[in-house]
Formats: sequence, C-alpha cells, structure tokens
Amino acid sequence: MALIVQKYGGTSVANPERIRNVARRVARYKAMGHQVVVVVSAMSGETNKLIGLAKELMAEPDPRELDMIISTGEQVTIGLTALALIELGIKAKSYTGAQVKILTDDSYTKARILNIDKENLKADLDAGYVCVVAGFQGEDENGNITTLGRGGSDTTGVALAAALGADECQIYTDVDGVYTTDPRVVPEARRLKSITFEEMLELASQGSKVLQIRSVEFAGKYKVKLRVLSSFEEEGDGTLITFEEEDNMEQPIISGIAFNRDEAKITVLGVPDKPGIAYQILGPIADANIDVDMIIQNTGADGTTDFTFTVHKNEMNKALNILRDKVQGHIGAREISGDDKIAKVSVVGVGMRSHVGIASQMFRTLAEEGINIQMISTSEIKIAVVVDEKYLELAVRVLHKAFELEAA
Amino acid sequence: MALIVQKYGGTSVANPERIRNVARRVARYKAMGHQVVVVVSAMSGETNKLIGLAKELMAEPDPRELDMIISTGEQVTIGLTALALIELGIKAKSYTGAQVKILTDDSYTKARILNIDKENLKADLDAGYVCVVAGFQGEDENGNITTLGRGGSDTTGVALAAALGADECQIYTDVDGVYTTDPRVVPEARRLKSITFEEMLELASQGSKVLQIRSVEFAGKYKVKLRVLSSFEEEGDGTLITFEEEDNMEQPIISGIAFNRDEAKITVLGVPDKPGIAYQILGPIADANIDVDMIIQNTGADGTTDFTFTVHKNEMNKALNILRDKVQGHIGAREISGDDKIAKVSVVGVGMRSHVGIASQMFRTLAEEGINIQMISTSEIKIAVVVDEKYLELAVRVLHKAFELEAA
Repeated sequence: MALIVQKYGGTSVANPERIRNVARRVARYKAMGHQVVVVVSAMSGETNKLIGLAKELMAEPDPRELDMIISTGEQVTIGLTALALIELGIKAKSYTGAQVKILTDDSYTKARILNIDKENLKADLDAGYVCVVAGFQGEDENGNITTLGRGGSDTTGVALAAALGADECQIYTDVDGVYTTDPRVVPEARRLKSITFEEMLELASQGSKVLQIRSVEFAGKYKVKLRVLSSFEEEGDGTLITFEEEDNMEQPIISGIAFNRDEAKITVLGVPDKPGIAYQILGPIADANIDVDMIIQNTGADGTTDFTFTVHKNEMNKALNILRDKVQGHIGAREISGDDKIAKVSVVGVGMRSHVGIASQMFRTLAEEGINIQMISTSEIKIAVVVDEKYLELAVRVLHKAFELEAA
Repeated sequence: MALIVQKYGGTSVANPERIRNVARRVARYKAMGHQVVVVVSAMSGETNKLIGLAKELMAEPDPRELDMIISTGEQVTIGLTALALIELGIKAKSYTGAQVKILTDDSYTKARILNIDKENLKADLDAGYVCVVAGFQGEDENGNITTLGRGGSDTTGVALAAALGADECQIYTDVDGVYTTDPRVVPEARRLKSITFEEMLELASQGSKVLQIRSVEFAGKYKVKLRVLSSFEEEGDGTLITFEEEDNMEQPIISGIAFNRDEAKITVLGVPDKPGIAYQILGPIADANIDVDMIIQNTGADGTTDFTFTVHKNEMNKALNILRDKVQGHIGAREISGDDKIAKVSVVGVGMRSHVGIASQMFRTLAEEGINIQMISTSEIKIAVVVDEKYLELAVRVLHKAFELEAA
C-alpha cells in the first residue's frame, strides 16, 4: 500500500465527463489498495472568467478580494470531484486550502506556503477516505484566503506530498510527459522517460510549462518523487523526475530545450561604473514585488556601464516607470529602454557538466541561421540566450536538430 | 450614526452593473455617517447553475459536497461587491460565513445558525470598513462549510443585525415592499406601509416569497427592525415590519393573502382510531427530515379515522414510500394516497382577533365560486385552506376583493 498524491490540471477537470474520468482513475488506484489524495485545479477557463468579472468592477482588482473570488474556482471542482467519487461508491471528502489547513504568507495572488497541517487528512485517509484538496489556495494566519499564483496547484500537490510523506506525486496534465521541447514547435520532439530534478528545475524556470517551477523546487527540497502523466491516456508511465543522474552511457548531453515568450528586456544605459549600482537599480524593482530573471552588466570603457535585466512582459511598463521616476536621475543614467519583442531559448542537460563545447555549439548553430544573441546567461547545466522574438521557433528547431534530440 | 445591515438578493447583484448600483447605495449610507454591513446572495442563476453541475455528477448530490460547491456563489459576489466599493474609494472587506464566523449545526443544505462571532466585524466597522458578508452560508464546529437553505441570505442578514445590535436590517429585493397579495395574480394588490411581525410570519409561512420565514422568526426573536425595500428604486420606504399593532382605527382586519403551490397532500385512510397513531405516522416522516406543514385528523364513525398532512411537493414520493414501507402494515391503515395538484390559500391579519366572522366570510366567498375546500387550518391571525390547484388564482382574486384589500 502506497500513499499517492494525484494532481489534475484545469483541462483534466474541464467538464463533468472529464471529472468522471478522474474519479475512475482514482478508483483504480484505490482498488489497488493505495491511499489517494487528489489535488484539482479550477475547471479550465473558470479562473479567467472570474478574473474578467473582477476587472469589470475594478481595473486592477484589490488582491485580497481577487483571491476571495478566484479561489472559488477550485472549490467548485473539489466538490464535483468528491461527488463523482462518491457516485462510484468511494468514500471521499473535499477540502479547501483553509480547511486542510494550508498556511501561507499574506502575499495575495502569489502567496507562499508556510506550513501544512496534515492531521485532518491523515485521519481521513486512515478512515478510508479519498481526500480531494483544492489546489492553488491557502489561508494566511489571519484567516484570509490567499492564492499561490498561476500554476499554484502543482505546488499544492507537491507540498501535500511532502507534508504527508507520500510515495509519489503524480501530476496529470494534457501532455503525457516532459518532452525534449514543445512538440507544437518541433514535431520531432520526444518524450523523456526520466529527467533529473535539476534539469526539470532549469526547464521549468526557462519556460517549459509542464510543471510550475515552485512545485519542482518543493519537490527537490523535500525529495518528493514526481511523475508527469497524461490524464487523457489510460496507460503510459509519463516522465519521472529523478534525484540522481542515471549511470547510463547513453545519457544524453542535452535533455531538452525550453523557451519563454513572456519576458521583456529592460536596459539602463550609461550608468556610472561604481559599487552599489546593481542594488540601486534593482532595489526599487524588488520593492515593487517585480520578479527579475536574467541580469547582465557589461563593463564599459568610458567609466560607465550598461545594465540589462528581464522581467515579465506584463510588468515591463511598471518597471520602466519606477526606473524613470525613482532611479534614473538618482544614479545619473543616460537612458532607460524597454523591449518586449524578445524570447528566451535555453538548452538544458546534466551531461553538460562532463562535456565541453556545448555553448560554442549552441552559438554556432544560431549564428549559422543568422540569429543574433542579445543576452546570455549560464548555469552549470543550462545555457540560455535572449533573441529577437521572431526567431524563436527557428532557434528551437535548429537547436533540437543540432543536439540530436529527436533520436530515441 | 446608525449601524445598518443591508441584504441584497440575487437579482440585485445579478451582474457587474447592478453590483455597482449596490455599491453606490452603500456609499450614500456611508456618506450619511452610518456603519454598514452588506449581506449578498449569489448572482441570480448561479446557485441553480452550480446545483445543475453537481447533479450531472450525482443525481442526489452528497449534501456536504453540495454545500461546498454552492457556497461559492456568494463567495464570488462578496468579492465583487467589495471591489465595487473599493473602486468608489470606500474601505471594504469581504467575509465568507466561515470567516465571520457564523457557526451552524451540521445539517448540510439546511443548517441552522447557532452563534455569530461579531468581534472581527465590529473591529473592522470601527476601523471604517464596510463589511461585505456572504449570505446563505456558515461553518459547523468541525470547520465544514454549510448552507442555510433557499432564502438563507435573509436569515444571515437578520442574524447579523441581531448579533451586532444593528439599528435596522434592510432587505433589498426586486419588489418594493410587502403587498396585500402577489400583484402578478391580483393587479390591484397594494403595498403595505407596515405590517406586524406576526402577520409577516404568517404570510412568510403561508408562501409569501418576499421574506424567508426563518429570517422573520429571527427578527421576531431578537427584535430586529426589518424593512423590505426595492434595490431598483432610489426612493421609497418599502414596508416596515413592526412589533406592535398600530393603534389605528383604520387598521385593516386582513393585511394580506398568501398562497403556496409547493405543497402536496398525503392521506392515510382507515387508521384504527387509538392513541399514538399521529406519532406512528409522523415519526418516521420526521426521522427522514421531511417537513410537515398542515396536519388534520378526522374522527370516523367505524372506529377508524383518516389522517391527512401536507409536505413539500418534492418530498411527496419519499414520504409515500416511507409510509407504505414502514408504516402502513404496522398500523393497519387501509390506504395511503398522495395528491400534488393542490394549492394553499391563506388570509392573514391581526384584526381577526377582534373581528368575528372572517372565516365564514372566506368560506362563503369560495363557495360562491364553486371552489371546494379540502383542508382547513387556522391560527389566531390566519385562516388557511387547501383547494384544487386549478382554482388558486381565482380564489386569491375573489378573496382579495371580498376583504377590500385594494382600497388604500
């Protein structure tokens, strides 16, 4: 008997028929003697519908009230999923985040989980219940409802698996695993049987939408065995996210290629090249709760430097205003500019550690296609570049081929 | 400065524009210096939509899960209403029933309020907030979400007014007050400026849909000043529900005529006429949580008696099955029959206490129209009769005229 946490995304619970499918799958695991915790998202489209309603009343909705509203999406789904299970003769009980309770900080719309009280769930699991928990939501210490941000249901699933010491956390989605890259861009993309946690983390942070990065971080921190599966296929083992590199001669150097169209580039030109500049620029950005991804600073020849960083497209104008209002005069920068017509492409693989020349191969491949590289950022197992948005698909396709990712 | 609780029904918050209207009205009261608690229902149609979804998954939905699902309707509205207020520059904060907290028993789908914790609301009101509370819902002692049954938002409003010691509880609805009868049936029906609590209680219990009976009971018990108003009119004083009969020569004998098409009649024929029969028949009905309204027992001549009672139409078959399975053989009844083609018509008025002959006037009026009376039930201020459903409108119209209710 194992304890399994299964998380189903919005498309997997999009309508009553699909919810019945989820219930049937849960029933099979139950019949095998497992204890099952089910985490569900809102029915696909619901969260956006609710946000739309909120924006009709307030263009930038008060975040506490927005969380109050959008958290209902998952609350409907847990009730419906529990009904589908009960209809199959399975004991089931739904829980909101607050009922579990999943304690978060009070950063509405992007709260972080602080603690999970597992006692209620444990007692119900031991009494034979399937526990159906609302993803994406929690409660702060004052009893206010919070949400974890887009994709937060994955985080809920992994955090519950960690808190309960589950044997496996299964993430059911509309794809049947993690691919070498997005098959919509490269039809030859291939499903990976397994991928290391570090690679998955890089892929997620670089824009692969299969798993939300925070859920992967959680899984890594608490050593949760994570598996990505399709909710639309009866069979298939999906992709297992492992903690150790397989000792395998055939281990590919590169596991996958991720990309991201959601970032915008902000450049601060002609900054005096002296200590503290990075903090003076990024401090006010952080204060405004804007996430910064890549950061690059070049040393210039004339005692000034150029400073470039990327933020989410939606926050570019906010960041530009902050820099122009509060920073530019203060630090004596010549110019502040923004560009949201960019895309980021990353190659990721633990094999990089033992193979040199990956970066040069990547740059050569892009150069041969005439694709200019605007920014470069590297980690031990990843090389990411920013290119003009219009070259994104081309870049991904040629890199997928150059690193022979279509081979089985 | 007064403390006012305003309750808005589903049609008053049916869409963003109407929610903005609610916010503007609240803003006017706030500008007068009042403290305001707003109680809202789900947007009209939402609760039925959610029940429909639930029934797609389970024909008779598990009540705990049903409450989990349908309580989201009000949760969306409180968030939207708070946003509309904040957009007007008014400090506002939404509360679910659990957040208040409104403690109920655990009778899912028809829970009763046991206690209301007023401390959070008081603190926020004193800090200048408008508190927007979800109607219709609460939480049991184990933290399960409960709902109060149809119309439960009125009960929430009155219960909050009682707990907070509010100066007035205003019930905003799609009619501008309490009428002598339903104007859709009798166009000459007239709005009452005031009505006594007892009359309102009888009208509500006899099928007048303006206020839910439990809210009137609550208002009576805790002496809450209740006013029914239209949310679609800027002006108008609606109908005030008073605690004392006005010392008014012009006080009409009859205040109004209520009717109800929702009941069905169940008759147990040929029951041995001995002690304990009523309990043996109605005990199993009560155990099944079926509400019984009118009860009539005739003494027969041959040592047997006929026993008749009414239940909600939706529960007639359930009640019949219980009687046939568990009761008929046991008590030796000859026959059990049900009839759901009936309607109940009631005349209500405190003036009845000092005027004789109301009953005979009522019976004569119906007889003149050839309307047969199937059952009669009376209280100090009410006479209710059950007639064939097809005569309902005719009965209401002739009684409205006979008691001169159209007169100003």
